[in-house]
Amino acid sequence: MDKLLKQIEFLTEIDKVKNVFRQSLLSDASRHENDAEHSWHLCMYAIVLEEYAEPGTDMLKVLKMALVHDLVEIYAGDTYLYDEVGNLSKACREKEAADKLYSMLGEQGADLRALWEEFDECTSKEARFANCFDRLQPVMLNYLTEGKMWLKNKIHKADVIKGNHRLLSYGHPKLTEFFNKIVDESVKKGYLLP
Amino acid sequence: MDKLLKQIEFLTEIDKVKNVFRQSLLSDASRHENDAEHSWHLCMYAIVLEEYAEPGTDMLKVLKMALVHDLVEIYAGDTYLYDEVGNLSKACREKEAADKLYSMLGEQGADLRALWEEFDECTSKEARFANCFDRLQPVMLNYLTEGKMWLKNKIHKADVIKGNHRLLSYGHPKLTEFFNKIVDESVKKGYLLP
Repeated sequence: MDKLLKQIEFLTEIDKVKNVFRQSLLSDASRHENDAEHSWHLCMYAIVLEEYAEPGTDMLKVLKMALVHDLVEIYAGDTYLYDEVGNLSKACREKEAADKLYSMLGEQGADLRALWEEFDECTSKEARFANCFDRLQPVMLNYLTEGKMWLKNKIHKADVIKGNHRLLSYGHPKLTEFFNKIVDESVKKGYLLP
Repeated sequence: MDKLLKQIEFLTEIDKVKNVFRQSLLSDASRHENDAEHSWHLCMYAIVLEEYAEPGTDMLKVLKMALVHDLVEIYAGDTYLYDEVGNLSKACREKEAADKLYSMLGEQGADLRALWEEFDECTSKEARFANCFDRLQPVMLNYLTEGKMWLKNKIHKADVIKGNHRLLSYGHPKLTEFFNKIVDESVKKGYLLP
């Protein structure tokens, strides 16, 4: 029963991710999105767009990565993709957060932490696929909310291209074409600075 | 590109599930939980407590089911587990919602709909495992918030036992023992009516 209690304690602690708010707005622009919602939506992108995965991609691993990839933000906070200063200290803040969070679960925590590290390194098939949608999902929310947060943060097209290199480097021609179309349309409609 | 556009349209439509609020409060009791957060948390319960699954359980299917199981509530609304009148019309309302939602995706929509139906029928190993945590996760939120919503809705111990039969019938001795412990402690502490 001790192990189960520790697991439930961890599952209770991560409830806090529902209060880590991101820069993205919901598609109806009513409020900011939180990390739990984003992680769920990212999973849905992955399963609906599964046919764009490289052959042999382990979809269970993709989903597990998507589910845990933002847990460190409970202690480290969300770092905006386009925040250059915040991104300098991100790795260090998130490593400390991971030490604190995953140590709650012993060996099992090390396995979950490894999923997060693999996601972050973005070299395996699964991590590359999950990262692709970790980028596309917020781009879509920005587009659907007429670029409110892009404009507020004075984001230019070049920032979006640079910030989303993990999506572009995934290299699926259809996903790349779609992304470029959304970015170009955003500039044309005045949602994103040229 | 047409197929991808339809898929993105579906992924945009389901953003609405982030505004379907449930009876459960977050563990800090600051506000009600929504369906996207609940579905994410349910997935986390499933992967952290994977060792309690029956041998041969397909965890990818469990996660897919957990991710989609509340999508129909975008149109059908959330039905409180302990709302006897609401539960009479639930199946009908949710069937109509499923017709509307999953038809957006053609054949792929039928596959996602089948996952929801399997979850709801609760006969396969995967559906039984996912349902188990669909019950345990809100029980934990009720316990952690000192039964605020149970007390508000005048819920008795017998209601919780009856409402959570999918958890109890899962039949894992440790999960059953834990559930009974939480229920008994809730009554003892005055979070739940005896």
